[in-house]
Amino acid sequence: MKRTKTLKVPGFAASAVKAGIKKKGGLDMGLILAPRPCPAAGIFTRNRVKAPSIILCKRRMRAKGGKAQAVLVNSGNANACVGKRGMDDSVALTGALAKELGLRPAGVLMNSTGVIGEPLPLQRMLSSIPRLAGKARPEGLSEFARAIMTTDTYPKTCTRRISSRGSSVTILAAAKGAGMVMPDMATMLAYVLTDAEMERGDLQRTLAQAAKDSFNALTIDGDTSTSDCVLMLASGESRKSPASSKRGMKDFQKALSEVCLEISSMIAADGEGATKMFKVTVKGARTVKEADAAARRVANSPLVKTAIHAGDPNWGRVMAALGSSGAPVDPEKMDVHFISKNGAKASVVKAGAVASAYSEKRAKTILSGTEFTILIRLGRGKQSRTIYTCDLSPDYVKINAAYRT
Amino acid sequence: MKRTKTLKVPGFAASAVKAGIKKKGGLDMGLILAPRPCPAAGIFTRNRVKAPSIILCKRRMRAKGGKAQAVLVNSGNANACVGKRGMDDSVALTGALAKELGLRPAGVLMNSTGVIGEPLPLQRMLSSIPRLAGKARPEGLSEFARAIMTTDTYPKTCTRRISSRGSSVTILAAAKGAGMVMPDMATMLAYVLTDAEMERGDLQRTLAQAAKDSFNALTIDGDTSTSDCVLMLASGESRKSPASSKRGMKDFQKALSEVCLEISSMIAADGEGATKMFKVTVKGARTVKEADAAARRVANSPLVKTAIHAGDPNWGRVMAALGSSGAPVDPEKMDVHFISKNGAKASVVKAGAVASAYSEKRAKTILSGTEFTILIRLGRGKQSRTIYTCDLSPDYVKINAAYRT
Repeated sequence: MKRTKTLKVPGFAASAVKAGIKKKGGLDMGLILAPRPCPAAGIFTRNRVKAPSIILCKRRMRAKGGKAQAVLVNSGNANACVGKRGMDDSVALTGALAKELGLRPAGVLMNSTGVIGEPLPLQRMLSSIPRLAGKARPEGLSEFARAIMTTDTYPKTCTRRISSRGSSVTILAAAKGAGMVMPDMATMLAYVLTDAEMERGDLQRTLAQAAKDSFNALTIDGDTSTSDCVLMLASGESRKSPASSKRGMKDFQKALSEVCLEISSMIAADGEGATKMFKVTVKGARTVKEADAAARRVANSPLVKTAIHAGDPNWGRVMAALGSSGAPVDPEKMDVHFISKNGAKASVVKAGAVASAYSEKRAKTILSGTEFTILIRLGRGKQSRTIYTCDLSPDYVKINAAYRT
Repeated sequence: MKRTKTLKVPGFAASAVKAGIKKKGGLDMGLILAPRPCPAAGIFTRNRVKAPSIILCKRRMRAKGGKAQAVLVNSGNANACVGKRGMDDSVALTGALAKELGLRPAGVLMNSTGVIGEPLPLQRMLSSIPRLAGKARPEGLSEFARAIMTTDTYPKTCTRRISSRGSSVTILAAAKGAGMVMPDMATMLAYVLTDAEMERGDLQRTLAQAAKDSFNALTIDGDTSTSDCVLMLASGESRKSPASSKRGMKDFQKALSEVCLEISSMIAADGEGATKMFKVTVKGARTVKEADAAARRVANSPLVKTAIHAGDPNWGRVMAALGSSGAPVDPEKMDVHFISKNGAKASVVKAGAVASAYSEKRAKTILSGTEFTILIRLGRGKQSRTIYTCDLSPDYVKINAAYRT
């Protein structure tokens, strides 16, 4: 399995245009187009307040024999909490795109991300559709990745190629991270494309498996958007079917998991105002759920995140977060280490108190990096969990406290 | 029931000294002294990582016939996560104070708040005890309230007097809020004193009842300290026993609840970096637990808190927080109002979408105040809950990202 720099997946075309949705201008409508109706998989926000686009995607994808051939995305407006017209607008836009491309409307998915509570500028968007459809080409994915950006400081894409016996399968992901230009919801959107031949059920299972330790292990500020969504389409263009062998499926799962983890890490590293990406790994838990609760509590603690921002090895905050995580931890069994990106390790807490080998200087050096891990051992069992997150900086507050207008 | 400005409760004496614990100097050891061993009640942090002082208080207060006659408090050092010596130091300090005052050590309680993981400067503290004990006097409570301050910008005290038939009972509370000078844990400490005659069981019940809607309805940043503690002592000096009549107990509960709510509101308003205090009231929930989850999620959402900081009526964030609170809400039944301190009301969301009467100007005017309420109606049942919190400002990050040294 190797990374590949070419932003193409056989069979898929993409494009982007400026439709005038973002108040600051820039690309704000994007399209992904498959060569034929494809098996599609999706993971959706668990927020009970859902944008109409999320409801539309779920409905169309879960329909009997549901396949997807196009994905329409707009940034700058989430089309959420606008009443009945929200769904009407999504249906109208996907309908217009289907007509333009000669597809069945049921095969068109849509995502909207941006400010909540304002109606979409429907006419401007409708009139942009012919241009968007006309521009679609295999090289369009990098433009697409820019069109879905909001407060992201760079476009996020990554790819893997799985080669065997002279042919190969490609997996590509494009995503946007936390924040909106105007700014509003910390919405995460990700699109995963492959030319593998996959049944819908297999696709959903492998995506769900990959998402468990990547997208679902990601937190910027603990807030959950109305529009978070990961969509995956398999064009079958490679004529290779990973499911035809156990080894094939294993390799595919591995490559997909790698792609999802890499793109998730990019989202964490580019969180609003973030200057550092860090992982919180909890080991020695009795259950994965317990490990998850402990790791998530540390990753979401504003006091931990602000100390990390300052590069301050204020491990007392880590201990306090662990103690209030709801996990039935025993302080006297807990160890904490800081580990740098290149593997340098500092022992911080041993059996609930400061480690005898603790060196403040060593700990500070690790936390002054832009990527590191807080490793926590609970000493209760064998389960573990890693959560990906970023620091909390004054810029996070500034970005999110800016007026929408 | 009327407020009283005199910071005295018949029978109680107090004092404060500089012991050199705080690196920036200032009063950092405080003492409350009762005329005799008193019934005492306490509410303690639920953090599983507990400071030794918390364990000591619980043990001494819950002992058979346990009474309290003195409370020793230090700021600048939490004496937490320092291994076995943490408890040894607490025992030594309370023992030395008991000897100095001629009390039983079992009647001396202690709280420590400040940086975690550093041992107490035991010798300096021991040598300050004679001075602290010698200064104790009825007028000392305002000095005591200053000695427990950390990043608090002002000392927090409030009192109520219940008068009937020519005599009266006093209730006084002194508290410190969120933040440490050096800075570390957002520890909350509160002390409630009364000259009422109360049995220990009655005292604990009335305090727990008052705390439910005050101290336990307070959140600054969702972090829970290892040292949070509310202690209440009843000296009996008034020779009035509220429990001798149903009316007496009702009046006492009412006054105590008022005192606890007032001092909690002061803590919220003076949260680290806070510029505004706001309440989140959820009505129409099916259970109090559901109302609590929804209100707490909104109050703790960094996106809501930063919007509030900017005075931006970004109600989409309130909706998104509600949807991800875990409460089984139905967006189409939800209403949201903003209410100013003087009762001006802005309808914001009606049945899940922007209210037809919504005025951005009106909403902004309310949010530009320093105190207001976000009222949410879930339309599911009859239960309600109010949570008290503050905005999230760049100063919160700056205060907490400052190096400890």
